[in-house]
Amino acid sequence: MTATPTEPFASSIQGTMMDVQLTIPAILERARTYFPEREVVSLVAAGKDERGNPIPKVHRTTYGEVTDRARRLAGGLTALGLGRGDRVATLGVNSFRHLEAYLGVPSGGFVLHTVNIRLHPQQIAWILNDAGSRVLMIENLFAAMIPALLEHCPQLEIVLVMGPLPQPAGGHPKVQDYDSWVMNQEPIASYPDLDEREAAGMCYTSGTTGQPKGVVYTHRSTVLHSFGIASKDGLNMSERDRIMPVVPMFHVNAWGIPYAAAMFGASQVYSGAFNDGPNLARLMEDEKVTATAGVPTIWLGLLAELDRAKEAGEPYDLSPQERVIVGGAAAPESMIRAFQERHNLNIIHAWGMTETHPLGTASNMPPGLDPRSNEAYALRATQGRAVPLVDLMLLSEEGEQIPHDGKTMGRLLIRGPWITESYHGGVGQGSFVEFGGKRWFDTGDISTIDPKGYMTIQDRAKDLVKSGGEWISSVELENALMGHPAVALAAVIARFDPKWDERPLSLVQLKPGMQATHAELNEFIQERFPKWWLPDDTVFIEQLPLGATGKVLKRELRDEYGGFGN
Amino acid sequence: MTATPTEPFASSIQGTMMDVQLTIPAILERARTYFPEREVVSLVAAGKDERGNPIPKVHRTTYGEVTDRARRLAGGLTALGLGRGDRVATLGVNSFRHLEAYLGVPSGGFVLHTVNIRLHPQQIAWILNDAGSRVLMIENLFAAMIPALLEHCPQLEIVLVMGPLPQPAGGHPKVQDYDSWVMNQEPIASYPDLDEREAAGMCYTSGTTGQPKGVVYTHRSTVLHSFGIASKDGLNMSERDRIMPVVPMFHVNAWGIPYAAAMFGASQVYSGAFNDGPNLARLMEDEKVTATAGVPTIWLGLLAELDRAKEAGEPYDLSPQERVIVGGAAAPESMIRAFQERHNLNIIHAWGMTETHPLGTASNMPPGLDPRSNEAYALRATQGRAVPLVDLMLLSEEGEQIPHDGKTMGRLLIRGPWITESYHGGVGQGSFVEFGGKRWFDTGDISTIDPKGYMTIQDRAKDLVKSGGEWISSVELENALMGHPAVALAAVIARFDPKWDERPLSLVQLKPGMQATHAELNEFIQERFPKWWLPDDTVFIEQLPLGATGKVLKRELRDEYGGFGN
Repeated sequence: MTATPTEPFASSIQGTMMDVQLTIPAILERARTYFPEREVVSLVAAGKDERGNPIPKVHRTTYGEVTDRARRLAGGLTALGLGRGDRVATLGVNSFRHLEAYLGVPSGGFVLHTVNIRLHPQQIAWILNDAGSRVLMIENLFAAMIPALLEHCPQLEIVLVMGPLPQPAGGHPKVQDYDSWVMNQEPIASYPDLDEREAAGMCYTSGTTGQPKGVVYTHRSTVLHSFGIASKDGLNMSERDRIMPVVPMFHVNAWGIPYAAAMFGASQVYSGAFNDGPNLARLMEDEKVTATAGVPTIWLGLLAELDRAKEAGEPYDLSPQERVIVGGAAAPESMIRAFQERHNLNIIHAWGMTETHPLGTASNMPPGLDPRSNEAYALRATQGRAVPLVDLMLLSEEGEQIPHDGKTMGRLLIRGPWITESYHGGVGQGSFVEFGGKRWFDTGDISTIDPKGYMTIQDRAKDLVKSGGEWISSVELENALMGHPAVALAAVIARFDPKWDERPLSLVQLKPGMQATHAELNEFIQERFPKWWLPDDTVFIEQLPLGATGKVLKRELRDEYGGFGN
Repeated sequence: MTATPTEPFASSIQGTMMDVQLTIPAILERARTYFPEREVVSLVAAGKDERGNPIPKVHRTTYGEVTDRARRLAGGLTALGLGRGDRVATLGVNSFRHLEAYLGVPSGGFVLHTVNIRLHPQQIAWILNDAGSRVLMIENLFAAMIPALLEHCPQLEIVLVMGPLPQPAGGHPKVQDYDSWVMNQEPIASYPDLDEREAAGMCYTSGTTGQPKGVVYTHRSTVLHSFGIASKDGLNMSERDRIMPVVPMFHVNAWGIPYAAAMFGASQVYSGAFNDGPNLARLMEDEKVTATAGVPTIWLGLLAELDRAKEAGEPYDLSPQERVIVGGAAAPESMIRAFQERHNLNIIHAWGMTETHPLGTASNMPPGLDPRSNEAYALRATQGRAVPLVDLMLLSEEGEQIPHDGKTMGRLLIRGPWITESYHGGVGQGSFVEFGGKRWFDTGDISTIDPKGYMTIQDRAKDLVKSGGEWISSVELENALMGHPAVALAAVIARFDPKWDERPLSLVQLKPGMQATHAELNEFIQERFPKWWLPDDTVFIEQLPLGATGKVLKRELRDEYGGFGN
């Protein structure tokens, strides 16, 4: 060995790392090889009761069986002649069959196109056509719409019905029973040599404003997002966990949980079409669920059932439950407190959108803070801090960066390797902003970010109430109203006002048998707001209209009540 | 909305995800923005005692200060005229200053070249020259070698001394005090626009066979590896954790812990030059360490101290300690049992190499297994299963794939996005194998893999004892010998045998004051092995020779004892 170099120095050096691609087949193979015995539990429908409602039945399978069928699905789609990047649509509830599509479709080189089952059949047909899906996997619960979809979507070559084949649909030559079909296929011989930037999944926005727009996830974004949500500050997943995504697999990939759980070997528990409080509570108890995720309306249903059972002296044992993730809409602080204090359940706020895969932020507590302190509850009611690799920014109406002072509201911009930079087909360009030489997605949300990075959605830009040129957050008012014991659900919208342009109007759904007046409600919330923020009036409504993803349809409310009082 | 598509179907679709690069500045900025108050604790040397040994002193800082100084370091290196991809070498112990280099050097677009402090100065000079490092950051403890390094490495433009500047070295115009220098620099104005495949770090193999070979980590591999080790089945890191990497920052990036901890906001605790049992135990107790990682020899030292303290009736309180990762060499099952049963500490085996960043496998338990059962101990003594995105394979001497039956030994091949596919400068091509159209790294280890994926290193290929054409694992014999109460350290090597070619020879270092004979030791282990595996003889040695990374130097032993008895 000599101390003088044998060659002249290179002025720069190359990395020596393998260029191994981040792809979904790696997740499938991992679950198949290392976790074949881990369970996948689904509530499936087994007939109907006297009132015509489906009866739940527990179905048990394993990653071993699911991945075998997923590989057969990939093989079967290949045998059908599907090409790289072709779309395979699903219209399904959360179940092991849907998981087979999650793992099998992208592993064959195709694109999993999940379609929202709560949309109107005409809208579903439009989306299937816009995406150009050649195959449809549909839950037998929704088989009634098959004839209409076949009529309006001529490019559909085969419809695979998940669950026992219903008679009327069974007659069509394009319609097959998925379970029989898939077991007749050969497992895919070898996975295609995928580039991590190839399309793997596709999801349309809910389209509450204008046409739904398609977002196309890639293999890379799916693998990276899996790491993001499986981390300790996310869903904290390992082989010893049992995760129940109540968030639907038909929208934003059930927040990516099916992929992350398979990657880390966590068992999955699916509630199928049974998302009411009693079914969820029973499933969580029976299956020893350790983490779950859903929208606030789902957890309100669960809370009611937990309260009922506790009062009846027969409380559920949910002690294995380590965290309950809430997202999709803001959870009121009162709900977070209720779960913590009455049931010792740890609610963690998360935020995201179809365009963000969806995990953007999560509201974990810093160390040393008592989770039951007022300071902690205030932080837990925020949407939290960005997860690794995701950046947030606030812009003013003039397009300038707004300080993260926890007070100043601005349009929320987001950037990261699992955030969309366009929509399928190039539509919706107005949602993207160049700033600092980089492209950001404009969420359409109005937010504040505090100096420690905790972000709070103040409102959707279109839902803000602009009173005399000042902004009033409808979300903050709603969250405060939801804390009132008589209120089941509350929405605040802008009504036209000749003097102030807009003024807030409360629309409230009371709990059964409960009473409240406008004055009582305003008195209940008045301490927390400037006087001019308080709603001018309250309309009590029996049932607030909910959209396909369980959010209140403010557009409908504005259409009906925007001129209220004038 | 119409149900017919407005455009012809695209036959394939493009992903719409942002092409955001996976880079180290994202880790730096995350620690700076979200975790500025989290602590970085270091044991530093404060003078020397009467016997000339350094005296430990606790130094406390935060991610806020560390990232400020890291950004100044990046700015200062830029101001020095360093170009993209230029190497900055470190010769340092684990400390906050070394962490500043970890975060700052790659964030400026330069390559962090960590050099093993335990090498001979001539070998260090060779490595500095081979890498072409232009800057050296060196711990003041090692300042004595500065003149020699400056003489043999003319390309070194500046030497920054970490810790108080010692007099003799201080005189040279190229030598500066790091602390003063860095605070005089301006923080880097903006990070370079890095490609994730650019070089970020560089580490040389220990070079026990031939010249050391350089492995060049990229920004991408570093970020992905951080996700891999931070997961629940890795080090389980969050902002609420306090991680102590005892594995050195001068070798394989302290197993990537400094980056992963910064990314997830875990506090870091560094033991500096004080890695003896009493100092480690005290630091773990005082700093409420939740997870730690090190080589077996380190943990043997810790075990002795924990035993001593317990017997003395003054046990340490290590209750926050959730996991102790052991790697770098196989940990004997007896050690895993001792920690679990005497001190309730959960040892987790992990395996990797310089070439694998290093995390390749970890031996987590599947659910439902009592960690104190014999079955669990047997699994925990394996090297475990591959972590996400990493693939393992076994090859026979004929180059054919070997089944994962838990019995058949083969050469261990590995592949993944943080595994090297070459060495710097193209040397060592023999370590890479094409199989199934893909390039794999040949670890040089002989392993078995069981049907559930648990891998066991049976031996280094060069350390196998080939007796009459059959393979004997020196590692298995050593682990069994280490279970004997009188044995402090054991090595088994092949000695030349005229009849069998090779036969195993035990080399044993006894615990102080303890006695044992060859016959006793063979009797102790004989139940576990075929008779022909048992060593022919045992040589008792006062001190087995250890290499720079704490491993027994078998090459030296072979040189001296390979002909023993002939």
